[in-house]
Amino acid sequence: MKIRVGIYGYGNLGKGVELALRQNPDLTAVGVFTRRDPKTLKTLTGIPVYSALDVEKMKEDIDVMILCGGSATDLPKQTPYLAQYFNVVDSFDTHANIPQHVKNVQEMAEKAKTTALVSAGWDPGMFSIARLYSGVVLCEGQDYTFWGKGVSQGHSDAIRRIDGVVDARQYTIPMQSALKAVRKGETPALTAAEKHERECFVVVAEGADKARIEREIKTMPNYFADYNTTVHFISKEELDKNHGGLPHGGLVVRSGVTGLHKENKHVIEYSLKLDSNPEFTSSVLVACARAVYRMNQEKMYGCKTMLDVPPVYLSPKSRDELLQTLL
Amino acid sequence: MKIRVGIYGYGNLGKGVELALRQNPDLTAVGVFTRRDPKTLKTLTGIPVYSALDVEKMKEDIDVMILCGGSATDLPKQTPYLAQYFNVVDSFDTHANIPQHVKNVQEMAEKAKTTALVSAGWDPGMFSIARLYSGVVLCEGQDYTFWGKGVSQGHSDAIRRIDGVVDARQYTIPMQSALKAVRKGETPALTAAEKHERECFVVVAEGADKARIEREIKTMPNYFADYNTTVHFISKEELDKNHGGLPHGGLVVRSGVTGLHKENKHVIEYSLKLDSNPEFTSSVLVACARAVYRMNQEKMYGCKTMLDVPPVYLSPKSRDELLQTLL
Repeated sequence: MKIRVGIYGYGNLGKGVELALRQNPDLTAVGVFTRRDPKTLKTLTGIPVYSALDVEKMKEDIDVMILCGGSATDLPKQTPYLAQYFNVVDSFDTHANIPQHVKNVQEMAEKAKTTALVSAGWDPGMFSIARLYSGVVLCEGQDYTFWGKGVSQGHSDAIRRIDGVVDARQYTIPMQSALKAVRKGETPALTAAEKHERECFVVVAEGADKARIEREIKTMPNYFADYNTTVHFISKEELDKNHGGLPHGGLVVRSGVTGLHKENKHVIEYSLKLDSNPEFTSSVLVACARAVYRMNQEKMYGCKTMLDVPPVYLSPKSRDELLQTLL
Repeated sequence: MKIRVGIYGYGNLGKGVELALRQNPDLTAVGVFTRRDPKTLKTLTGIPVYSALDVEKMKEDIDVMILCGGSATDLPKQTPYLAQYFNVVDSFDTHANIPQHVKNVQEMAEKAKTTALVSAGWDPGMFSIARLYSGVVLCEGQDYTFWGKGVSQGHSDAIRRIDGVVDARQYTIPMQSALKAVRKGETPALTAAEKHERECFVVVAEGADKARIEREIKTMPNYFADYNTTVHFISKEELDKNHGGLPHGGLVVRSGVTGLHKENKHVIEYSLKLDSNPEFTSSVLVACARAVYRMNQEKMYGCKTMLDVPPVYLSPKSRDELLQTLL
């Protein structure tokens, strides 16, 4: 009996979930739910498309619903709503609002005896787990999160809004000097701008004033002004050819001390290099769907996060096999 | 109310636990249990010393016992025995025998309604967790574990048994070429010898035949014969000055693919650089003692491993605080 998974929303993340489900033989994709007209949508692997309006009717056909909407407006409404009918997984990533989101979903899931897992992915998600484990082991220490090298959609959008810009791609890149220091176990106080630099690839309209555009980018408050920012003007063809993907990644480094005189230093590093940010996130969501299904079977109801999940629940392998092969 | 911890055995690991407990204000060291005459033993921080013979009498005074004996002969007997009276944590690390050890301890802990966590540390332990998480996310992929750079006690001992050798220290070092390949997401088939090289610092007796000793080291089956091995002859003073510590570390790298045509590659890396192998392991054991105490409070009895523990249980912080700060 495969775990039957629904996909709610069909952007990059939804497509990634569809593909990740193919790689996990103990799960199966029931179909995609969309707010668009289902007839207008063709899935990558041919799985069925349903109207989001019909989702409640499918209650008995789906073991876990993976929500693939955005954190700004979709998930705050959709996750509590769907938790009334389904076990759910989402990737809500507005860090400051996570406690409220957990509370909202908890209320619905507890009442409905469903199991929800929110804020799954890599940050929040795998990076949160890395921060937790390294923090409990090196309790006297400090950790640093670096993002990149990777495409920031928000920063790319900000550049696109500048007059004369046709298209743009912005990469966030960890500063090698900062990285080197924290990897040695040094504990400098670093702002986000001291940890990252920004590299922009920009396509402009014919005759546009490149000097002005570069100045507008580099002085844009919050987005670029505090950062070491590099701007490259390139052709649309080059952008499409060399900057079409959505790579990302980053690392969590924690250093700490032990010993009678705190004389021994330790460094823990967790890093990701991802060719496709949405596909990696989707792979995390699918592993979480398995865990959610099992937790629900064991009557562990309510709203969880990846920090609450016993690692064994994420794996298709039996505990015995895991003890034999991983420990 | 602090969690009251006993330390059973007082070698490098027991000392490390004593020191780690000082760094965790929600736990307190009740004392050390030794098979030696307690009067002959003075602890680093002045905590009391008891005879191992009196341990059963202390049942009511200890919430969790951390076992600090060896995996060869101590833990297979001590952990099941003590699980009859205490919640226990051990670092049993004979990989092939872990399933049997879990079974033996499970039997005792279940009956006594105690909670045990075995095979904690970094490998098995943190590395097992890294392998599990990266394996469930990148389900089509391959992982590699490298050890070092660090001192291998077993290999150092093997050199010391050679005629004419006064003292020795052996470092296991990951091969940079192998490391580079797997970090790029390549998936070569590599034996242990293709992943690691061995560097030996050897002190010999006056007039000893260095050529013979070097030959005996380099041709020693299992330990060195298959490896790229380097031998340095140094003075006792130099050995004590530059090679007195017990540094270690290593890394777990997994690469895998996603996408419609498996065209996207991802690399997850978890690495440790440790100035003191036993102190780091001890820090893991202490975090596990906290989790064991809590699981026992919640009637989660029996024998667990780090793969079974919800990460939140390891932290002194409340779940609310963790959701706010780590996610």
